[in-house]
Amino acid sequence: MTFSGTDTSIPMDDRGLAYGDGLFETILVRGGVPTLWQHHLSRLRRGCEVLGFPCPSLTSLEAAFSSLKTSPNALNVVKLIVTRGSGGRGYLPPIEPQPRLLVRHFDFIPQQDRWEVVNRVRLSPLRLGHQPLLAGIKHLNRLENVLARQELMHANAARHHGSEYVEGILSDSNGTLIEATAMNVCWYEKGKWFTPALTSCGVAGTLRAALMTAGILTESSLTLLELAKVEAFCLLNSVQGVWPVYTIDDECSKPLWVAQPSPLHLSLQKAAHCLLGYEE
Amino acid sequence: MTFSGTDTSIPMDDRGLAYGDGLFETILVRGGVPTLWQHHLSRLRRGCEVLGFPCPSLTSLEAAFSSLKTSPNALNVVKLIVTRGSGGRGYLPPIEPQPRLLVRHFDFIPQQDRWEVVNRVRLSPLRLGHQPLLAGIKHLNRLENVLARQELMHANAARHHGSEYVEGILSDSNGTLIEATAMNVCWYEKGKWFTPALTSCGVAGTLRAALMTAGILTESSLTLLELAKVEAFCLLNSVQGVWPVYTIDDECSKPLWVAQPSPLHLSLQKAAHCLLGYEE
Repeated sequence: MTFSGTDTSIPMDDRGLAYGDGLFETILVRGGVPTLWQHHLSRLRRGCEVLGFPCPSLTSLEAAFSSLKTSPNALNVVKLIVTRGSGGRGYLPPIEPQPRLLVRHFDFIPQQDRWEVVNRVRLSPLRLGHQPLLAGIKHLNRLENVLARQELMHANAARHHGSEYVEGILSDSNGTLIEATAMNVCWYEKGKWFTPALTSCGVAGTLRAALMTAGILTESSLTLLELAKVEAFCLLNSVQGVWPVYTIDDECSKPLWVAQPSPLHLSLQKAAHCLLGYEE
Repeated sequence: MTFSGTDTSIPMDDRGLAYGDGLFETILVRGGVPTLWQHHLSRLRRGCEVLGFPCPSLTSLEAAFSSLKTSPNALNVVKLIVTRGSGGRGYLPPIEPQPRLLVRHFDFIPQQDRWEVVNRVRLSPLRLGHQPLLAGIKHLNRLENVLARQELMHANAARHHGSEYVEGILSDSNGTLIEATAMNVCWYEKGKWFTPALTSCGVAGTLRAALMTAGILTESSLTLLELAKVEAFCLLNSVQGVWPVYTIDDECSKPLWVAQPSPLHLSLQKAAHCLLGYEE
């Protein structure tokens, strides 16, 4: 059952609404062709396995792109939401769930200025909880991200000087670096790029996955106390690309890590933007 | 903006659907009159404060009960869902959210047999993650409860003898007892009833709150290793009342704690059922 961009509503008994019982993917689409589609599909299918309901057919998923009326070089973002479908009152899932696929289309322009400027980020006071069962998948239980993003908005509103924070950095209850509110993170150390292993929390982004597959990014672990050894730091996701970061402030907006602008991120960024079709 | 039981759908851009960005209350209604209403209202208002959007007016909330067509002694359950309302793509909440109130009505019959029988429960292999910011409130990010309930269903399906498990018991990553999938828990020790303090995870139920207000239930802490000192154990919530439990099995369905049927729970149950109007 697909509700497409032309539909405007979903049934009130949908379990995605009731319990966040579903998954989503946010896909960069260039001239009607989805980028990193195999990585999105792979994460969506893994999510369905974890939650225990069947993934919609490839045909129904790919119809989301063919229904998009667009010119050859136009950029869009297509958001797919897959829920467990309708259900009764109570947490018990229906024995034979009929997943619901929702499709939304958005025009899209990446924030290209952030590919080059001296981006600042701020550590979120929110610490991500550990739930290994749900780590990595892009499920609909995203209140931690919403609260962290909201807190960042308030922090930006309270700033009287200096540029705004472009993202909030999320660590877990152990003080281990995990992600940003809507992006993954990576750091450069002794000649290599690393990204947090997301076994206890966080969303495993598709650009992160593609760069790992390409051997450009390796999973590792970094606590906030170890930031001093980081030589370069970037944010990344599959719609915005790679943003270099030169300042990480703490929860009180005091500097935690500062780097001089450098070209260290350029090769990573070039590889990433090539995957997304952002190369010049 | 209220969508009542007669409406059948909600807008696809609702943040409750997108991120579980909202709250709910499930209320026992007797002859059109909500039970424990002040406790439900109090939890809902606290949830709105935590999530950072205004709570719908008392008038709009109470219209959920006045719109219910029912006879004087009829039992219903009214489910209120309050979401942050519509929003754009991305975690950033709208600056001026217009919360959406959804109302659903259900006929209801409590499972009275469970007030008296020798109920069995099973420890869930799922360990609740810690998120102090969200602990206690009844938000829409309930995948942990859904997965635990689903796992219990599979465990019951695999049982070849013995009675089914009526609930799954949830502990946290430290092995501390927290709740059941859709009920709170309490235990009797040295003449008093205790219930877990829910500062890191779990939903603070309204029957639990009312019994605490009445001085009948006190917050404490219990790890699974300390179960031996428990003299009696009960499940409770504001629609089903109090269920005595005499067997707690572990994740492998091996006995972890077993008690002989006793009258220890009767005074607690009587007080609880009086609050819910279930007294004879």
